[in-house]
Amino acid sequence: MAVGLEENSDLYPVKGLKLAACSAGIYKKQRPDLALIACEPGATVAAVFTRNAFCAAPVAVAREHLGKCTPLYLLINAGNANAGLGKTGYEAAIETCDYLANLCGCNREAVLPFSTGVIGEQLPVDKICSVIPGLIEQLSEDNWLHANRAILTTDTVTKAISRQIILDNREITITGIAKGSGMIRPDMATMLAFIGTDAAVDTAILTQVLTHAVNQSFNCISVDGDTSTNDACVLMATGRVDMPVIDAIDNDAAVKFRDAVTEICVYLAQAIVRDGEGATKFVTLDIRNGIDFEECQKVAMAIAGSPLVKTALFASDPNWGRILAAAGRSGVENLDINKIKIYIGDVCIINNGERSPEYTEAMGKEIFQEEEITIIVDLDRGTEDRNFWTCDFSYDYVRINAEYRS
Amino acid sequence: MAVGLEENSDLYPVKGLKLAACSAGIYKKQRPDLALIACEPGATVAAVFTRNAFCAAPVAVAREHLGKCTPLYLLINAGNANAGLGKTGYEAAIETCDYLANLCGCNREAVLPFSTGVIGEQLPVDKICSVIPGLIEQLSEDNWLHANRAILTTDTVTKAISRQIILDNREITITGIAKGSGMIRPDMATMLAFIGTDAAVDTAILTQVLTHAVNQSFNCISVDGDTSTNDACVLMATGRVDMPVIDAIDNDAAVKFRDAVTEICVYLAQAIVRDGEGATKFVTLDIRNGIDFEECQKVAMAIAGSPLVKTALFASDPNWGRILAAAGRSGVENLDINKIKIYIGDVCIINNGERSPEYTEAMGKEIFQEEEITIIVDLDRGTEDRNFWTCDFSYDYVRINAEYRS
Repeated sequence: MAVGLEENSDLYPVKGLKLAACSAGIYKKQRPDLALIACEPGATVAAVFTRNAFCAAPVAVAREHLGKCTPLYLLINAGNANAGLGKTGYEAAIETCDYLANLCGCNREAVLPFSTGVIGEQLPVDKICSVIPGLIEQLSEDNWLHANRAILTTDTVTKAISRQIILDNREITITGIAKGSGMIRPDMATMLAFIGTDAAVDTAILTQVLTHAVNQSFNCISVDGDTSTNDACVLMATGRVDMPVIDAIDNDAAVKFRDAVTEICVYLAQAIVRDGEGATKFVTLDIRNGIDFEECQKVAMAIAGSPLVKTALFASDPNWGRILAAAGRSGVENLDINKIKIYIGDVCIINNGERSPEYTEAMGKEIFQEEEITIIVDLDRGTEDRNFWTCDFSYDYVRINAEYRS
Repeated sequence: MAVGLEENSDLYPVKGLKLAACSAGIYKKQRPDLALIACEPGATVAAVFTRNAFCAAPVAVAREHLGKCTPLYLLINAGNANAGLGKTGYEAAIETCDYLANLCGCNREAVLPFSTGVIGEQLPVDKICSVIPGLIEQLSEDNWLHANRAILTTDTVTKAISRQIILDNREITITGIAKGSGMIRPDMATMLAFIGTDAAVDTAILTQVLTHAVNQSFNCISVDGDTSTNDACVLMATGRVDMPVIDAIDNDAAVKFRDAVTEICVYLAQAIVRDGEGATKFVTLDIRNGIDFEECQKVAMAIAGSPLVKTALFASDPNWGRILAAAGRSGVENLDINKIKIYIGDVCIINNGERSPEYTEAMGKEIFQEEEITIIVDLDRGTEDRNFWTCDFSYDYVRINAEYRS
């Protein structure tokens, strides 16, 4: 059960982007597990990928292809990560691209492959290719939610959002979908997320916008501290709205567009945490007055990565000593604990490094009963404020991951 | 249930060291929870402590006291960590030292306090002081195991070991006890461990020996990735054996002594992992051909800290993709995955970055059924080989830590 998250079926189509999904028999249960996104010629595309050194074959292929031409097709499967297979995995990814490219009359490099699922099993290339013709036929601008369903793994709910904003007096649409529930601790990238817009945006600017948005969103979450081999986030701009191309970052339209994309990414990143494997709590880590983003992130990720903090959250036990211990081991240089303040909700627990005299266990218990909890850590050594998001650690996390392959 | 670990009651007394233990009503259940170790004058003492910035009051006091004189008494309680309490915690620790020092006619600085247990609750100074006179009366060289029992928290079994070795034709004894089960990811120190010897060792050499031993043992383990606020490891040498004082590290006796202390520490560190909260598996991470200790440690700790690897171990599921993903995100610079080899037991899974053609799921399953598992990661980029130890992550880990304060 996701925390405060339900399926959002209120999605706007994006002119110039068509989607389709079907079952190719890849996932262990029979359900949609293959999605195709077609992006019309003339669009611009930006993408970020996992920094895991053991990146999956489709990540390697997608990076290469992106360097050669602007993509026309994104082929995404769930149930098999196509990772850890070396050359055979790479060749399997290429084979699916070739098959699709031949059918559509484009270059192999215009196809980007994406995979998510079990690591170390051969990608069933034949199963995938056999359903590609049908997928192409079904391509439609109205299939965002259908595609979203086909890319889920342990997710319990789709993660999708649309926004319409006015840029230069024209209405533009941005729609995004994502998947992710476990192995979530993105490193300069994210789980699978695909965002489309009909705005006209220069590729360099699109890349800047995506990097900015990802740093504020997918790079600020952790479910279990594990960085996936397959993370990828793609932003596609079809330019179908008749508007001046956004080709610089320092004007109102660019900033407004960037902020809207960031909002979409923050929603999707939070949705991944809300649907974290076994999650029963959604926790905002509000790190204040750090020197820079990196140290705020260190403190947040130490807390978010602590099984002790997470099991206390699951038990609704305000065992704040574990929060303090995690902050203390976060590796921030010269951290002066005598200045630190820690709040849960609006209740101060630690004031200048020691337990606040006003704090009572009853206050803590009341806040920790809630499904959504904010933990504020004020480092009092700089001016950087950042939010991060995480969830708790339950019996169900262990069950889901102990049974994952069975 | 600890993995392959039973109580070891076969402990040699150490001449010049006396111990006592009793219940002071600190622990949530009625059981021994206060221990006293008395070290006769003339002994040398070395200690290492947690590097958690939020170190507990007793750690701060012990560090200060050690800087002023050689300790005569170690006072250790279980059930209350005396951490996160700022000035009042510091004063409480000092009060117990004062009380003991007054009774024994020594300086306050000759007493080192140690605490382990719940963070953020006031230390019950009166309860502790009220039983100290009785403790002093019970001091005996034969109480190592009794003292060990009194310092446990979620531990299910004592962790103790003795060795006798010949140095310069004299038999010397080394005996050590430890506690630790959760919040285990030592950072240049350990959980609580107390080691005594009747050898004669200069303080500077004793410190070098302890640092060496800790780096090979307590700094090589992780149960849950959380570094405690209270970690401490103390090595006391009474010099009661009539032998030349070990005052240099570069001779046979010094090396033999260092190796024996290291062996003791490795046993105790492994015992902590074997008794890790909820542990059902004991895992050796054998990292080979790294450039230095630090990068071997990064790879080992990424694997040891991965909830996904740990839940797979719990399920006896050879989901080696998770091992590979963890190694990939470990942050080792310029890691060339095309050279990496990964083995479980003697079975090669990954050869030069890809799945070994000989590997079958059945082979992996057989090895993962075992209670004790070795995972070898060969980085093939240097000559440093190091062993690390960790355990799995079970429903019981969640239960123990969700219920810890209830």
